[in-house]
Amino acid sequence: MTLKQEIITLNEERNVTLTAMIQSVEGEFSFKERPAVIVMPGGGYSFLSDREAEVVAYPYLAAGYHAFVLRYSVGEHRAWPNPLNDYEQAYAYIRARAEEWHVIMDKIAVIGFSAGGHLAASAATMAENRPNAAILIYAALDQHISSACQPGIEIPAPMDHVDGKTPACFLAASRDDMVVPISNTVHFLDELDKYGITYECHIYPFGNHGFSTGESYLNGELSSRTPHWVADSIAFLEDLFGKLTAEGMTTPACSPKQNANADETLSVKCTVGYLRQFTGKVPELIPYFEQVDELGDRLFGDAGASVADQLCFNVLFGMFGKSEEELQQMEERLRAIPNITDDAKR
Amino acid sequence: MTLKQEIITLNEERNVTLTAMIQSVEGEFSFKERPAVIVMPGGGYSFLSDREAEVVAYPYLAAGYHAFVLRYSVGEHRAWPNPLNDYEQAYAYIRARAEEWHVIMDKIAVIGFSAGGHLAASAATMAENRPNAAILIYAALDQHISSACQPGIEIPAPMDHVDGKTPACFLAASRDDMVVPISNTVHFLDELDKYGITYECHIYPFGNHGFSTGESYLNGELSSRTPHWVADSIAFLEDLFGKLTAEGMTTPACSPKQNANADETLSVKCTVGYLRQFTGKVPELIPYFEQVDELGDRLFGDAGASVADQLCFNVLFGMFGKSEEELQQMEERLRAIPNITDDAKR
Amino acid sequence: MTLKQEIITLNEERNVTLTAMIQSVEGEFSFKERPAVIVMPGGGYSFLSDREAEVVAYPYLAAGYHAFVLRYSVGEHRAWPNPLNDYEQAYAYIRARAEEWHVIMDKIAVIGFSAGGHLAASAATMAENRPNAAILIYAALDQHISSACQPGIEIPAPMDHVDGKTPACFLAASRDDMVVPISNTVHFLDELDKYGITYECHIYPFGNHGFSTGESYLNGELSSRTPHWVADSIAFLEDLFGKLTAEGMTTPACSPKQNANADETLSVKCTVGYLRQFTGKVPELIPYFEQVDELGDRLFGDAGASVADQLCFNVLFGMFGKSEEELQQMEERLRAIPNITDDAKR
Amino acid sequence: MTLKQEIITLNEERNVTLTAMIQSVEGEFSFKERPAVIVMPGGGYSFLSDREAEVVAYPYLAAGYHAFVLRYSVGEHRAWPNPLNDYEQAYAYIRARAEEWHVIMDKIAVIGFSAGGHLAASAATMAENRPNAAILIYAALDQHISSACQPGIEIPAPMDHVDGKTPACFLAASRDDMVVPISNTVHFLDELDKYGITYECHIYPFGNHGFSTGESYLNGELSSRTPHWVADSIAFLEDLFGKLTAEGMTTPACSPKQNANADETLSVKCTVGYLRQFTGKVPELIPYFEQVDELGDRLFGDAGASVADQLCFNVLFGMFGKSEEELQQMEERLRAIPNITDDAKR
Repeated sequence: MTLKQEIITLNEERNVTLTAMIQSVEGEFSFKERPAVIVMPGGGYSFLSDREAEVVAYPYLAAGYHAFVLRYSVGEHRAWPNPLNDYEQAYAYIRARAEEWHVIMDKIAVIGFSAGGHLAASAATMAENRPNAAILIYAALDQHISSACQPGIEIPAPMDHVDGKTPACFLAASRDDMVVPISNTVHFLDELDKYGITYECHIYPFGNHGFSTGESYLNGELSSRTPHWVADSIAFLEDLFGKLTAEGMTTPACSPKQNANADETLSVKCTVGYLRQFTGKVPELIPYFEQVDELGDRLFGDAGASVADQLCFNVLFGMFGKSEEELQQMEERLRAIPNITDDAKR
Repeated sequence: MTLKQEIITLNEERNVTLTAMIQSVEGEFSFKERPAVIVMPGGGYSFLSDREAEVVAYPYLAAGYHAFVLRYSVGEHRAWPNPLNDYEQAYAYIRARAEEWHVIMDKIAVIGFSAGGHLAASAATMAENRPNAAILIYAALDQHISSACQPGIEIPAPMDHVDGKTPACFLAASRDDMVVPISNTVHFLDELDKYGITYECHIYPFGNHGFSTGESYLNGELSSRTPHWVADSIAFLEDLFGKLTAEGMTTPACSPKQNANADETLSVKCTVGYLRQFTGKVPELIPYFEQVDELGDRLFGDAGASVADQLCFNVLFGMFGKSEEELQQMEERLRAIPNITDDAKR
Repeated sequence: MTLKQEIITLNEERNVTLTAMIQSVEGEFSFKERPAVIVMPGGGYSFLSDREAEVVAYPYLAAGYHAFVLRYSVGEHRAWPNPLNDYEQAYAYIRARAEEWHVIMDKIAVIGFSAGGHLAASAATMAENRPNAAILIYAALDQHISSACQPGIEIPAPMDHVDGKTPACFLAASRDDMVVPISNTVHFLDELDKYGITYECHIYPFGNHGFSTGESYLNGELSSRTPHWVADSIAFLEDLFGKLTAEGMTTPACSPKQNANADETLSVKCTVGYLRQFTGKVPELIPYFEQVDELGDRLFGDAGASVADQLCFNVLFGMFGKSEEELQQMEERLRAIPNITDDAKR
Repeated sequence: MTLKQEIITLNEERNVTLTAMIQSVEGEFSFKERPAVIVMPGGGYSFLSDREAEVVAYPYLAAGYHAFVLRYSVGEHRAWPNPLNDYEQAYAYIRARAEEWHVIMDKIAVIGFSAGGHLAASAATMAENRPNAAILIYAALDQHISSACQPGIEIPAPMDHVDGKTPACFLAASRDDMVVPISNTVHFLDELDKYGITYECHIYPFGNHGFSTGESYLNGELSSRTPHWVADSIAFLEDLFGKLTAEGMTTPACSPKQNANADETLSVKCTVGYLRQFTGKVPELIPYFEQVDELGDRLFGDAGASVADQLCFNVLFGMFGKSEEELQQMEERLRAIPNITDDAKR
């Protein structure tokens, strides 16, 4: 068999299970390990939707991934942080068997729907064991909806916990979602932007809540584009993780971060706008800013500065004919400065 | 010939032209008229990009649309509102020849790129002659970028002019756009949401600015999904306008508005949340709100109300077993109340 | 769990197994049963390729099918008809558990690759238990290749056994296949045509032999279209079986037969050309043929008759303004005549 | 304008026109010339279908091609070889203006539908100016249908004129075509195979005749795959011609020939089976054949020889550990032998 299904009870009392769907490596498959996805069904933390479980795993299995379905604490056991603890336990369990199962531990994506999207996004923003990508489908992300999922219990909203360690995210939802307002998805993009995190996002004009993979047997009326998120998310993971080939994973096409604004130290890969607040500590930056502002004024008038501000600082070295050596020196200089600032200015 | 190309000079002094690409109707084509698109190339109001002109029109022509390319005022003639006036003039010109050309005047979409996206979005939010849909590709929408396109000139930002008459919008951009920050696209969704306007949006993880249709001869590295926006936007127009078939246009699958919150009077199609502020004028609403709040509390705790608030009010009639007659009566009652309120609460 | 994997030993001595991948019905899935596919890996009857086994099942599982992988007799146990007997046994086994597993027994497709395609095509043309569709991927179909797979053993070629009971077929292969010549696929279409059997066929310009699902980790260089066969075959099954929806299977869009030329009796759905040889037994046909020939001559000259010959005879009734009643009478008349003729004239 | 439409009268008496749709090069388009397609509408040589004319050109324009629509001699002027002469004249006209229009003259594809497919295939098999690829959509290819299109006139069938100079072909049709039997497409593949010509072919299960590009406004019921032929044919041309990029055309992924069996001299790229008939003239071949036959017998029994026969002879050098030098010597030896043989043995 080239697929082994194993059901692991993680917590008998809370009825938490991890269904492992492990594919072969070696032999006719010429690579030695595979990336993996962990699927988290929705159900408002009241139940676990069968429509967002194994059926979600198949396309990722087809694309070469190992797949796990995490059936986390719901109903009477729902109280936060039980579900997040379930995720941490599942992650640790997978890590413990990674060698046996041939899992690439730094290429693990979580996929969550609705309340399962709340859990996946919590894993991405608050867990000790962060996944390497999060696929968030009509996910509950803001405080209102997070609280609505767990009435009477204090529960954090992933929206408020995005940080510099948050992995790249893929989001999809319907514009007419009547259960989780579309602002959950839209505002989350802004939070990711604050930390320069790479993302992909698709908002379909109709399809409401709960469309799962968009297969016709799971749904009523959907926009024709709604089912595309599945293949798109696989292509997104390929961009981010590389593509599984006969020779193993290729080099990724895309970095998980747009810039270094959320790193622990400064860097030439911070944006111009971000570095502006550090001229006190690094006065060598000033001539660059003056030059770029002058150029911006000439090209764009008053708005010039803001156009330049989102460039990564290292781009200026090329524009201004500076040498690779000067760039290296500046990088060393900046890497020595701790990146401590007011979050609002990121 | 089944395609006639005609180049119309709209303003000789400002070098404004409209290239009409008009397709046959009748004869072997069994329908009598066609919808249309108006393409507005980008170029920062300094020039007009050839890469965002006729090449954009082909897929819409293939889908059965008439296509126009508007070469509006740029360079020395760029000063606002020249470009918007060019649009108004183009629209009036098309209307004047609509019968001859067999154009369906209430199924016209504008398609704009970058600064052309600023113009298309201005047409959608500020023009006298609003189009029926706007396709905004890496469009300049906020004040900073709008001003950067026209240094020294006062120019409005479409972001600040979305209103209840804004048509449904389709937006696409790259998350790593270094010229027009992705917040232009993301924040515009929020503005559309305030007025309940239908939209579709795709943000690709990389591809920067200026990818046009995503064809390989126009670009360097793009995400594999980037070129999908073209077919997706055609499908969006089909959802919105109906599909051109041998028998003419089909019934649309999708309404341009999510609710009636931005109509001139109240309606049962306003959302629950929106109608809450009118209980003074329509006390008959109160029992419905009480009932839905009680239900929400029971299901979702404190957050219950906010979950219900985005439902269209008419949905409650079904939930609470009310008759079609009661719904009609309430609609008459509400339609008599002018929809005057504080915009911030929409 | 919504997927149950079970490995059934069908023949311990010959190491024949059936891996069942059974999905849930009822509950959140609102339908009561599912169609199924049986996958037959290739390997020249010497071994069973892991690259054409479970990995093939995933897309059909995603589309709502139950999936089975049949590991039939190979190597020392390969001698024909062992593999075909394995299929018959697998089919009987599935039928015995169809109620328990909720399998729609008249919506079962076989999917075979290379030598597995020989077996799948043998099931479709020679088995007692015919499947309802056959998906034949770079399948070994003619006598030369069939014999090459089983040196020294007498083995029939599916090419020579197509008959009126053969189900609709889907075929895909590479034009540059160096192992199984493309004529295996091309000539099989002619055999299907003789019996009026519905088919779909895709031949890709390069990709050689053994591309399986076309996933990059299974292959080297392929044409960009090669991986499309998987989704295309699912759409073909939808056309033929109907589509699985929340309410069960829809009505098929497509008939498994083009005409009734291979039925046991004559019918108005036989083609004009086929019925011409029965004017002795049914002289009432003659006036129709005279009228259509006259029309053909006028429109197409000498070749007129051959153009009309492939029309189903019932089409003439509409063309010649005959009533539905006359059509019914003719159908009764023809259904009484046994369809006995020289095969070469079908 | 980046598109110039020009209508050229090629033959006033016969009402023959060439509509040129010429796109810009240079400037913002960084390449210097473009490949081209020539579209030939169908209509049984009685008329020219508007549904298979400019509407077909758009997707190729979008892909970067120049496009021409040839309105050839029909109706009273239909008599063969008028239409083929029109093609030759059109080709010569394009060549005369190739420099002005920036056409890559060795990357020209013809696209023909039905009777236009007869003309396109005639151009590919019988013209003095052969195109570099032929896209044949529900094309009339055999003698019966060719004659049916031109009653009373002697007209050749492309089926009977495939030769070693025939370019690579892309074919698409419906299995249930009631006007041009599917055998026209299927049997043409066999003719291409005789000369080792590269092809791609898609046969859809339903859609009848005349589906053009498959757009909904041109059709009734089609299989969901039918419209795919357009994008597939563009990808096929990319494989064959290379892809248009900002830097010009890339290297093709695919050769127009599978082997050299139809070249003017022998070559190591002839197939083993083909070279077998030349052992009299080139006895050095004999040891290779003996070795491969022995191997074939061992692996495949009686059928062994036929399996090896389709390999290109040069592949054996690698299999048998021969040096690149030996391969070169054999190539020189074979290139000196004229390829004269009985066509039936190709």
